[in-house]
Amino acid sequence: MNKEIIYLDHAAATPMDLRVITAMEPYFRDDFYNPSSPYAPAVKVRRDYEEAKHLLASSIGAKPGEIIMTAGATESINLAFNEIGGHVIVANIEHHAVLNCAKLHDHTIVESDSRGFVSADVIKAAIRPDTKLVSVALANNELGTVQPLRDIAQVVRQEREARLMRGDKTPIYLHSDASQGVSQLDVNIARLGVDMLTLNSGKMYGPKQMGLLWAASHVRLNPLIVGGGQERGLRSGTENVAGTIGFARALELATTHRKFESERLAKLRDSLQTALTNAFTDAIVSGHPKHRLAGHLHISFPGLDGERLIFILENRGVLVSTGSACAANKGTRSHVLMAIGMTPEIADGSIRITLGHLSTPENTGLAGNIIIEELKKEYYRISK
Amino acid sequence: MNKEIIYLDHAAATPMDLRVITAMEPYFRDDFYNPSSPYAPAVKVRRDYEEAKHLLASSIGAKPGEIIMTAGATESINLAFNEIGGHVIVANIEHHAVLNCAKLHDHTIVESDSRGFVSADVIKAAIRPDTKLVSVALANNELGTVQPLRDIAQVVRQEREARLMRGDKTPIYLHSDASQGVSQLDVNIARLGVDMLTLNSGKMYGPKQMGLLWAASHVRLNPLIVGGGQERGLRSGTENVAGTIGFARALELATTHRKFESERLAKLRDSLQTALTNAFTDAIVSGHPKHRLAGHLHISFPGLDGERLIFILENRGVLVSTGSACAANKGTRSHVLMAIGMTPEIADGSIRITLGHLSTPENTGLAGNIIIEELKKEYYRISK
Repeated sequence: MNKEIIYLDHAAATPMDLRVITAMEPYFRDDFYNPSSPYAPAVKVRRDYEEAKHLLASSIGAKPGEIIMTAGATESINLAFNEIGGHVIVANIEHHAVLNCAKLHDHTIVESDSRGFVSADVIKAAIRPDTKLVSVALANNELGTVQPLRDIAQVVRQEREARLMRGDKTPIYLHSDASQGVSQLDVNIARLGVDMLTLNSGKMYGPKQMGLLWAASHVRLNPLIVGGGQERGLRSGTENVAGTIGFARALELATTHRKFESERLAKLRDSLQTALTNAFTDAIVSGHPKHRLAGHLHISFPGLDGERLIFILENRGVLVSTGSACAANKGTRSHVLMAIGMTPEIADGSIRITLGHLSTPENTGLAGNIIIEELKKEYYRISK
Repeated sequence: MNKEIIYLDHAAATPMDLRVITAMEPYFRDDFYNPSSPYAPAVKVRRDYEEAKHLLASSIGAKPGEIIMTAGATESINLAFNEIGGHVIVANIEHHAVLNCAKLHDHTIVESDSRGFVSADVIKAAIRPDTKLVSVALANNELGTVQPLRDIAQVVRQEREARLMRGDKTPIYLHSDASQGVSQLDVNIARLGVDMLTLNSGKMYGPKQMGLLWAASHVRLNPLIVGGGQERGLRSGTENVAGTIGFARALELATTHRKFESERLAKLRDSLQTALTNAFTDAIVSGHPKHRLAGHLHISFPGLDGERLIFILENRGVLVSTGSACAANKGTRSHVLMAIGMTPEIADGSIRITLGHLSTPENTGLAGNIIIEELKKEYYRISK
């Protein structure tokens, strides 16, 4: 990356960690064997692959046999939703992958509050006797709001127990897409209380298009992709050995540095937020003030045009986003901001700043100064 | 790879070409941006991605807009078969990915002949008024037999025209899995006459778990994975930029060197075949004698145990296979060898030798000597 660039869009993509690349490299040309081949060098590759799955599993407190490797979070989500023959519940601020999967089923879309918070009560009210799946992201990718998954898990567990009490065997599962925030949040499955969890390597300094779905042993999954029977028949296709090993290393690094990194990012984010809100007193910070990803700052400047701001800041080397990359590219207003009831004027004046590994006190401070300088010029320009 | 190893299993996996790795590396840490992000460095990544798709398309004579990037051949095949609401036809020697996709539909499994050849007549006889899809691999992964795709394409085209003549709009498509043999065979879609083509980067010295499905503009596809709407809505998920660029480079290299490489491999293979059949006069070479992949040698030694041979040869540093890696790993007899009517005794005495980039006259000659030496010992051992 160009040294003069200040990257403030870690929620959209992350550069691979050098230690991840180093871990993967042997599998490109040396240990390139098909892990299903019978000879010893391939058996070693199989063992390395299984060890990587073991490491992934232990990083979230799961068993390796409950992990299904996929080609990214979107595939994991599709697998979690596949052939659920019944009602599903999702929130209106979920990623399009979740929303579009839900729409393939009988579904209820519940509302988040104005901070992007999905309460357990709202989920509880939406549960029907035929509800099979509740899917709530661990943290929202635009606002950074962290959801009360433990409370939602309790609601789902109570429903499951109530069904069992009356002899109803209809299963109900809680799935969470934890693509965002793994570098900053605890993703221990027992503590989260989920039945299925999606992780995304490409958002945590690992290789792109690598993901996994963890599913508890009681979850009945149907394969989305059939064939040679890899991943216990749940995801066929020759295993992505290098990708899995890189993903495992990335998750290991995220877990090891989580506490330090989330404190570091929160400090940087809070300084930046203070600088911006002091400079622009009518700026609006969105997302939950407390339950929010450490590196996340969603901020609106009423009257300004967020899309224009992106290009103005880019000219100064500062890369920010208006929201999720998928939606930003389509030139449509964010469904998340609409869902939380933001007025079009405030929504259109929003930018999303997400800090991460590339953020330092120096470049974040400098970015703050540049943003203030350019936004003042913009306010002056439109005031004329 | 260990220098002392002689790798004769290129059909199972291929090492990444150094030029492929070099092409991918900038996208790991420098140009890591989400191609859907709006700022210029991400727009450059988007452009590089689209250029790679352009290169992939032009290598097979297609338009870039007809290419859907996937996470491997198995996913491509599943996409080709997805929500085909009607009858499908496949051959009994197809890969499990194709067979298992077919089994999700009303299907006819036609028989290949004893050389693993699927004739156009057999396909023609199986076509019903409601047949929507015919899927025949370009080359069989165990026997190396190359199928008469052009003749099969003509049969499918005739059926399509006959339907149109009688005002029947039921579509019929020909899909081919060309995972095997891209380094050796022409994969121009117009010359093949197919409507859909699956390619597999991991079998042509490109990155693993990268594939594509080419579908002609008249083919109506249904997405297997929904979400952010990437790949024209047909395959959601953040694009695998590095993987696509590596895949494009691998296909470009395969195309450039195809003529030279296939002649080189055929010469090596023929020498090896002659050496083995001279040394063991009751050895049986399978697959089509003429229409066969250049680097492919499937050979049976009646009375010997193929699985045992693999380990004996491995001890001497020679890596061969008994068949496809997926089946080999399960300890089951190959469905392909059963399908062509091979007796269990001959099937069990089979090995598959597949030459490729790592094959030289020296190491192939040496491998031949080692195989002859070890097999003679085996025949002596069992004769006692």
